[in-house]
Amino acid sequence: MAEAGTRRRGRGGGGAARRAERSGMKFEAARYISRNIPDFDILNAEALEIIEANAETLLEEIGVNFVDNPAALDRWREAGADVQGERVHIPKGLARKLCATAPAQFTQTARNPDRSVEIGGRNLVLAPVYGPPFVRDLSGERRYATIEDFRTFVKLGYMSKWVHHSGGTLCEPTDVAVNKRHLDMLLAHMTLSDKPFMGSVTDPSRAQDSVEMCKILFGADRLDDTTVMTSLININSPLTFDGIMMGALEVYARQNQACIISPFIVGGAMAPVSVAGTLTQVLAEVLAGVAYSQLVKPGAPAIFGAFVTSIDMNSGAPTFGTPEASQILYGAGQLARRLGLPFRSGGGLCGSKLPDAQAAYETANTLNAALLGGVNFMLHACGWLEGGLVSSFEKFVLDADQLGVLHTLAKGVDMSENGQALDAIREVGPGGHYLGCAHTQANFQTAFWRSDVLDYRPFEHWQDDGAPDSAALARSRVRALLDAYTPPPLDPGIAAALQDYVDRRKASEPDAFT
Amino acid sequence: MAEAGTRRRGRGGGGAARRAERSGMKFEAARYISRNIPDFDILNAEALEIIEANAETLLEEIGVNFVDNPAALDRWREAGADVQGERVHIPKGLARKLCATAPAQFTQTARNPDRSVEIGGRNLVLAPVYGPPFVRDLSGERRYATIEDFRTFVKLGYMSKWVHHSGGTLCEPTDVAVNKRHLDMLLAHMTLSDKPFMGSVTDPSRAQDSVEMCKILFGADRLDDTTVMTSLININSPLTFDGIMMGALEVYARQNQACIISPFIVGGAMAPVSVAGTLTQVLAEVLAGVAYSQLVKPGAPAIFGAFVTSIDMNSGAPTFGTPEASQILYGAGQLARRLGLPFRSGGGLCGSKLPDAQAAYETANTLNAALLGGVNFMLHACGWLEGGLVSSFEKFVLDADQLGVLHTLAKGVDMSENGQALDAIREVGPGGHYLGCAHTQANFQTAFWRSDVLDYRPFEHWQDDGAPDSAALARSRVRALLDAYTPPPLDPGIAAALQDYVDRRKASEPDAFT
Repeated sequence: MAEAGTRRRGRGGGGAARRAERSGMKFEAARYISRNIPDFDILNAEALEIIEANAETLLEEIGVNFVDNPAALDRWREAGADVQGERVHIPKGLARKLCATAPAQFTQTARNPDRSVEIGGRNLVLAPVYGPPFVRDLSGERRYATIEDFRTFVKLGYMSKWVHHSGGTLCEPTDVAVNKRHLDMLLAHMTLSDKPFMGSVTDPSRAQDSVEMCKILFGADRLDDTTVMTSLININSPLTFDGIMMGALEVYARQNQACIISPFIVGGAMAPVSVAGTLTQVLAEVLAGVAYSQLVKPGAPAIFGAFVTSIDMNSGAPTFGTPEASQILYGAGQLARRLGLPFRSGGGLCGSKLPDAQAAYETANTLNAALLGGVNFMLHACGWLEGGLVSSFEKFVLDADQLGVLHTLAKGVDMSENGQALDAIREVGPGGHYLGCAHTQANFQTAFWRSDVLDYRPFEHWQDDGAPDSAALARSRVRALLDAYTPPPLDPGIAAALQDYVDRRKASEPDAFT
Repeated sequence: MAEAGTRRRGRGGGGAARRAERSGMKFEAARYISRNIPDFDILNAEALEIIEANAETLLEEIGVNFVDNPAALDRWREAGADVQGERVHIPKGLARKLCATAPAQFTQTARNPDRSVEIGGRNLVLAPVYGPPFVRDLSGERRYATIEDFRTFVKLGYMSKWVHHSGGTLCEPTDVAVNKRHLDMLLAHMTLSDKPFMGSVTDPSRAQDSVEMCKILFGADRLDDTTVMTSLININSPLTFDGIMMGALEVYARQNQACIISPFIVGGAMAPVSVAGTLTQVLAEVLAGVAYSQLVKPGAPAIFGAFVTSIDMNSGAPTFGTPEASQILYGAGQLARRLGLPFRSGGGLCGSKLPDAQAAYETANTLNAALLGGVNFMLHACGWLEGGLVSSFEKFVLDADQLGVLHTLAKGVDMSENGQALDAIREVGPGGHYLGCAHTQANFQTAFWRSDVLDYRPFEHWQDDGAPDSAALARSRVRALLDAYTPPPLDPGIAAALQDYVDRRKASEPDAFT
């Protein structure tokens, strides 16, 4: 376990540290957040009990569909559910009881042990954007993403102090065949970063590739008792579990790898237009999904996921950073804690097409709610733009910088004698100032969080420098980070074996583009 | 009392409503927020008790300075304080006891009774930016503010649905003499809006002018038992109360008008670099200031103010939207509630020079903390830019729009049968969709908060429209609001009497420019 706080990296990446130092850029990696502040509980006990009772009613009375998955139906039948065709009616209490074998907290091990993360409890792990087919590049062009873009995002995540996790599909590398791009993405995470990462879920065979490559990276024997991937299993809301996603879940659960069981909901389309109704459906779906993971393998790590937005009834577009989304996030966090499961939400969500004020309002609304709502694993913490259609380099570094705000806020208030600072107030007295007092001198270097991207200069200096807006500042930051990047060291034998696996698998089947 | 929720205005402003309707723009005014969600308490009971004990120690042992104000020293001596020169040592417990006569909640009456606000309790009243000498205008020029800019901000506040209060010095009208500009500002608030407003505090005589003009507007006899102004009394931190500000406070308190007693702190300069130390000083200063208001007139309305930012130790600039500022805001809210006083903080604070991503991250961080921190009166809720040096029209409408997010979030979660939406989930079932279901049809128009400024259009439509960023969208919004503006009706006799008062007072003394 890494100790609290942030520090220079001890090993692995010394080259990057040295290179960053030469360029005047600090290369640091913060430990995942351990909250020393309370959660914000928006629902009272009565409301929670109503939602929980309603979810049990849904599971028993309406049930859920497990599609194209006869083995799943068998498992459910055996566990005591009433299976009618592909519809699984789960008796009240059964799903919750099955969920009890899932751990409340687990370690996701990284190849650099200093970067391993604890998911659950009072902890918050931050991971980048997942899924967009487009990028907005530094020239301002919005275009289809490539594997080179993907590698650039891995590098940015590796270089970002407040980002704990390398994530998964940082963007879709559309220039690589659909059935082969997972191999290139995994190879990038494994070789260009030493932070923890996610596996492929788009087909059970690709989940198996993820497992096999992890066996090369971590050692075949270690994987049985070590969780090295946390992968995103979306539920096809409402109340539907498709065979492909469940096939991937089965691969991961059997291998003790973690799954985020995540309803994917645009409120008004995939769930009711009300917060309480949406929470009820979310809980029912997560109960069924996590219970199923425990039917596959009791004790397999699972995360209570919630990705919820709402539809704009004028344009039909999904919206982000809205008050309803925050209410759902707060409520879902409470439901997850009562269920004893780690909780996952989105982070830097926004609908804006540009990294402008809209993007930042919406993102900050989500980030603040996620911190106070007790999220344990935050996906999309940085780089998300345009409702998830676009990964943005500029927004990546702007958001990643704001994640520092969450770290400091989560520490809570220092009530030590030094924090109380009575002697400083005595020393300065009425009408004085604190700039030179002993307490300030002793504490100022660590007293206040400071942005690494935003502008604090006086107006005149800023104007003389060309009056850069946040997007321009972000472009400079992206270039500086990439310029300072060197890959973390990796055993050449492992690197070669990974490359060989990718080459062999790519050669074993023709390219598919759907 | 206005009923809950928002509605079309019943009276006063029918012309604006009709004109706005013709232009396709809705003209609405939301009621102040009544929170139906809990507060976020960052400090535990032990921490609160330590800070409270330390504040009492400071007041007794170090004391506070009341400068250039012999009458104040007499009042303190009479109340039992130990006065040494201008230093007032307040025995432990005395200030808190004196604060007990200040009301926990009070009504600030507006000339349109539908716009009166309740300050305190579970309520949150939102008021615009206060104090900047510069504006950033729609052409992008940063220049000294004028009285015409001031009037434009009054109009924008009047037209903004989620802004409850017309505020005070929306910008400094630097083209009017220093000793006369308060008259023009008050006249603008009184005639161009019908929302509540603030009085002048820059000299006791200007506070008296504010009272006299209110007697014309509301009727001389009403003022004795009706609070119609909430004015900003800054403390000269650390621990110093200057004669001019206290002179203004004395005028207002004697007349039962409300004062915000507000330490003005850049942490590291006017307070220690630690959160707990700053909270201790804030509490001591507010205790002394509110106690003093009660010595002047027991029962006079007073607000626990806190304007706290921290200094960037590299540039010396104040910073905003930082985690330390949020921690202080949360802690100060708790201290205010334990003291039984309404609580004031800042709102849309930021250090950015432009209404860009930096401005919005910093603003949203502050707005979210202020809502959950239990703020009752939020100054600078919209329009603040560049650390308070600049009032921005664009940022005014962007922030004012985001204030709608706070309104919806504060409502809490609807747990009615309709909110639970079980029948909707039954109707749709696994694999269906909610777009056409009965529950969606019945609720979609009010289900989700919707921005009036930000862009939700599909990428292609947005691109065809010139790909506007948030600032461009804001400029369109400003122009549309001003185009739809007509002043609320005012009795011509009162309008003439106000103008006459302003003219006479202006003629009574020469212009002063310092």
